[in-house]
Amino acid sequence: MTGIETVTSAANPLLKDIRRVSARGGLTADGFWIAEGFHLLEEAWRSQCAIPIVLVSESSRPRLEQRAARTIVLPDKLFQSIATTETSQGVMALVRPPSWRMEQLFEGSSLVVVLDGIQDPGNAGAILRAAEAFGATGAVFVKGTVSPWHPKTLRASAGSLFRVPFVAAVDALETGAALVARGVEIYAAMPFTGSERMAGDVDFTRPCAIAIGSEGRGVGDELRSIARPVAIPTLGVESLNAAMAASILLYEMRRQRVREAVRA
Amino acid sequence: MTGIETVTSAANPLLKDIRRVSARGGLTADGFWIAEGFHLLEEAWRSQCAIPIVLVSESSRPRLEQRAARTIVLPDKLFQSIATTETSQGVMALVRPPSWRMEQLFEGSSLVVVLDGIQDPGNAGAILRAAEAFGATGAVFVKGTVSPWHPKTLRASAGSLFRVPFVAAVDALETGAALVARGVEIYAAMPFTGSERMAGDVDFTRPCAIAIGSEGRGVGDELRSIARPVAIPTLGVESLNAAMAASILLYEMRRQRVREAVRA
Repeated sequence: MTGIETVTSAANPLLKDIRRVSARGGLTADGFWIAEGFHLLEEAWRSQCAIPIVLVSESSRPRLEQRAARTIVLPDKLFQSIATTETSQGVMALVRPPSWRMEQLFEGSSLVVVLDGIQDPGNAGAILRAAEAFGATGAVFVKGTVSPWHPKTLRASAGSLFRVPFVAAVDALETGAALVARGVEIYAAMPFTGSERMAGDVDFTRPCAIAIGSEGRGVGDELRSIARPVAIPTLGVESLNAAMAASILLYEMRRQRVREAVRA
Repeated sequence: MTGIETVTSAANPLLKDIRRVSARGGLTADGFWIAEGFHLLEEAWRSQCAIPIVLVSESSRPRLEQRAARTIVLPDKLFQSIATTETSQGVMALVRPPSWRMEQLFEGSSLVVVLDGIQDPGNAGAILRAAEAFGATGAVFVKGTVSPWHPKTLRASAGSLFRVPFVAAVDALETGAALVARGVEIYAAMPFTGSERMAGDVDFTRPCAIAIGSEGRGVGDELRSIARPVAIPTLGVESLNAAMAASILLYEMRRQRVREAVRA
């Protein structure tokens, strides 16, 4: 059973809730992710996430193929008032986020990405996208990092957050303890100064975790004290953007693991 | 001789010109780049670019150490009206862009990045930053790509555009001809489908160029027809963000070249 209804009041409680989330980030009051645009809607479908509600503008309604339990049609102008993107496609899905337990991040040959203090949702989402692309088994959003529930984090992940197991708001010490308890080697991405070990010289084929800090502050003391520093050799620049550094390290890890698998 | 003056009129012609550039991109009427923030100002200094004018807000003036030929002090509110960033630091430099000739992109063992249709200035700037980090000898902004003169491209490059030789608004066919004439092997970054050659299996140690297209459209037909396709092996995701793909390919190129140099 699918239901289609029309909402025309700007004071509708659901729309008010969505506006709050668009402005401040986080989940809706009912615990749903805001996934805006046709691409994210399709990604949620193909990732088999529950989509209890789809909101669509009148002019975008003909483009909407899939049906959620509830479809809410809004006049174009009213849809604009809830849009989280500058150039909105007129469609927004409310998606039930998957719920992961810490142990699910370590399935197979562990490769865990630890986001430690990344503030920018675009960077955090891009790191998750790279995590999926290069076979990471899970991701930890350490306390002080932008939330995975932020609509912008989800959008920048291009849907990878629907699929990569992750846990959020975990204390840095607790994260370290969880990694150590599972015998996972912890590495911390550091700016290149010449004295760190180079990514290409480290053996990433064993179960491991890579901590990525913000561009300004780097990986926090709690994790840095138990991690081995690793750097990407660079010329000229002070540092790389956090998402670019993460994607290069994950590429390097994957490259080594594939090469190892071919040899074995 | 350095001069300090105060401007309080919103109708000042220079301020009007800067506002136009902030809104639409490009250089000022006098052909200067807009470099906002203390970091870019320092990068322009360390890159020995000419800085004919620095504009500073009254409250940021005490932080301003270096002196340009002209320093223009603005009331804070007036500075806000020309700011290109949401959280402005209250300082903006007008910088004379270096002028490069095509042949300067090929000095040493050529490694040229070709931006072909990248629309987002953040991505274009990030690619230039990676280009510098991994020793690219130059960059080409093909017609249809966002301008290197856009203040947001410059900012995302974190100053690399002050140093990496580049040419802009070059026709795709002309770019191809320039590369072929110099015996440079041309590669085109493609989304991974399984049939392309993998980045790690390609020999990038010879003089080469890598073309990066936009995420949606990819490398254009003109360059694709003369380039060898190369892909980054990925799992799950449809594609990588253009800047992340570029940084990984440049990392791989650099990795191979350093390894080759150690062997030789």
